[in-house]
Amino acid sequence: MPVDEELTLLMIPGPVPVHPRVYRAMSRVLYGHRTKEYQSQYKNTVELLKQLLHTKEDVYLFAGSGTAAMEAAIANVLEPRDKVLNVVNGKFSERWFELSKAYGIESAQLTYEYGQAANPEAIAESLESDEDIKAVTICHNETSTAVLNPAEEIGRVVRKHGRLLIVDGITSVGGDYVYPDKWNFDVLVTGSQKCLGVPPGLGAIWVGSRGWEKIQARKKKLPSYYFDLVKSKKRFDSSGDSPFTSAVSLLYGLHESLTMMFEEGYEQRVERHRRLGRITRAGYLGMGLELLADPNYYSNTVTAVKYPQGIKDSEFRNFIRRFGILIAGGQGPVKGKIFRTNHMNICTERDVLTTMTLIEVTLKHLGFPLSLGAGVSAAQEQMLKEID
Amino acid sequence: MPVDEELTLLMIPGPVPVHPRVYRAMSRVLYGHRTKEYQSQYKNTVELLKQLLHTKEDVYLFAGSGTAAMEAAIANVLEPRDKVLNVVNGKFSERWFELSKAYGIESAQLTYEYGQAANPEAIAESLESDEDIKAVTICHNETSTAVLNPAEEIGRVVRKHGRLLIVDGITSVGGDYVYPDKWNFDVLVTGSQKCLGVPPGLGAIWVGSRGWEKIQARKKKLPSYYFDLVKSKKRFDSSGDSPFTSAVSLLYGLHESLTMMFEEGYEQRVERHRRLGRITRAGYLGMGLELLADPNYYSNTVTAVKYPQGIKDSEFRNFIRRFGILIAGGQGPVKGKIFRTNHMNICTERDVLTTMTLIEVTLKHLGFPLSLGAGVSAAQEQMLKEID
Repeated sequence: MPVDEELTLLMIPGPVPVHPRVYRAMSRVLYGHRTKEYQSQYKNTVELLKQLLHTKEDVYLFAGSGTAAMEAAIANVLEPRDKVLNVVNGKFSERWFELSKAYGIESAQLTYEYGQAANPEAIAESLESDEDIKAVTICHNETSTAVLNPAEEIGRVVRKHGRLLIVDGITSVGGDYVYPDKWNFDVLVTGSQKCLGVPPGLGAIWVGSRGWEKIQARKKKLPSYYFDLVKSKKRFDSSGDSPFTSAVSLLYGLHESLTMMFEEGYEQRVERHRRLGRITRAGYLGMGLELLADPNYYSNTVTAVKYPQGIKDSEFRNFIRRFGILIAGGQGPVKGKIFRTNHMNICTERDVLTTMTLIEVTLKHLGFPLSLGAGVSAAQEQMLKEID
Repeated sequence: MPVDEELTLLMIPGPVPVHPRVYRAMSRVLYGHRTKEYQSQYKNTVELLKQLLHTKEDVYLFAGSGTAAMEAAIANVLEPRDKVLNVVNGKFSERWFELSKAYGIESAQLTYEYGQAANPEAIAESLESDEDIKAVTICHNETSTAVLNPAEEIGRVVRKHGRLLIVDGITSVGGDYVYPDKWNFDVLVTGSQKCLGVPPGLGAIWVGSRGWEKIQARKKKLPSYYFDLVKSKKRFDSSGDSPFTSAVSLLYGLHESLTMMFEEGYEQRVERHRRLGRITRAGYLGMGLELLADPNYYSNTVTAVKYPQGIKDSEFRNFIRRFGILIAGGQGPVKGKIFRTNHMNICTERDVLTTMTLIEVTLKHLGFPLSLGAGVSAAQEQMLKEID
């Protein structure tokens, strides 16, 4: 068969496969977005998000991608003369810098090689040496490098130094442990199409009490209309919905997906992702491949693998795509040098193992001297260990 | 996650996974089943079925399973005093005997052990030794044993002896080569939920010119109302639809599925099934397992595997089901002794390999002394051979 997009297993780190229950919820006939019935559904969905984040603070939704929620963070929490510390160890943490730049915010940067994790002590030093820095941005789970940054430790350091911490949780929220209150975050953003298991098109932002204090104390606002969180809060407090038209179908989907998460159980879900991460890494290492991420900071929702000598990115990914598996390449400085597969949302051992099996076939076909079954059997061993 | 039926890969030999396009076609709002618009859709669907069978004879559809179509064959083609030769080499060929018995038809039987193929010469001998036999029944692809009977050779023999050949093509039509005219069949039946790629609920029957002669020459009819083919033919000839209420949604689905078959190409589809059969068998043999079927008569749409000593059917199938793969056990005398997996319809290398991988994990977990990856790598080798 030629490439069949509908039968393709999305192993890219988002959008990820969506459960049929979510598609069905989304296929519900549209209801008026300013009716009490819809507002009640909206509020219930926000309640589930709050339950997921173990927080009492409200979460605001935007019809927009995760980047939209990131922009809302910058545009609301910072002021024209603020300085920000952008901790950059990948493409998505770099996006905070791009956003700061777009808004004319002065930025200090703490930069790491792709694959390395952010260092809380280095962040502390930066904050100590520069009193002007008002906020720190990080990406919790750096999707471009498959590194899980030590967000809890960073939160402790940033709070200790009295600055604000703005966190991108786009591939961690719903997939790995994230406790914005307990971990001293001040702003946390996420998107619908990763661990939340919904098609793209919804961005979400959580703001803690210190974040709100900063927003309300602003002397001069950055220019923003669609992303104005004060407007969002006012509307939500009075009517339980959003100031601008809500993405109704996506909200139906998010409600269903969150409902399913709690049916599975929060910890069960996270532990499944972590288990799948271990199986995935065992498989790749068994093939004799190298992982990009620092072994102390492996992501639990995505894995990045270095191409062995002689394997071309486009050939590799086009070949395996013929057999119904879509894999992501690298970005920025590791473009063409790595590939990435996800273990998020409804991913199971079956998806991970079938990916391993076809990656072996692909590498062998492209000339990599692999002993067929070497990675698969390592992943199988790990799977059996996890069962016992 | 607990067993999630919607995320389970149906590796049982039917119902098999259905393409999302077929589900969408089926979700079309119902239209009146006696309108010209629906009759036109019905006729177009029958035309596609005829194209699939390379025939000019019409095909009649019943809201019913494949067994319903089998009953229509017996009830219409035979007369109360006819004698039939039931060639029995599995559960489904035996069903022709059960049907004959239910209608009080005298039956001669030619019986084979499960796993053996029907022998055209033995059929010839039976026909030569018993002038009273009016018709022969066979199952083309014996789903219970994964044996592909030599239908073309049997057709030649039965025609040579001037008898009628009634064929169950339930797991061959749409999956393997089936040429009812060229192969001298007189009646051929099939069902929607196997190689036709539609949910269960539609039975289809094709009758060749000699079959119709027999139907029209009957002196005494067997009792039948719903399955009366004369009524079916009359209605189809005049209005292009069925005498009783048509299964409208399933027909929409069948039209879409047949359309997709011709998009892929008839030979491409059959050759894909055959290729997947070779990969499947290589995998099982690589695990050190034995196949049930005579190697000269392997089915191309389903494979049956003997359990190794010490592996219990229910434990095996329940364990793998936890990981999202549904596998069939054995029937009749091989119940508890074999398992079966399909390679039909939208099945791909990915499905076959993931099944192999998880079967290995399952066997290992249940104590079978397997070298993990042994079967998978054999299947991978076969897959690479097929690519080169």
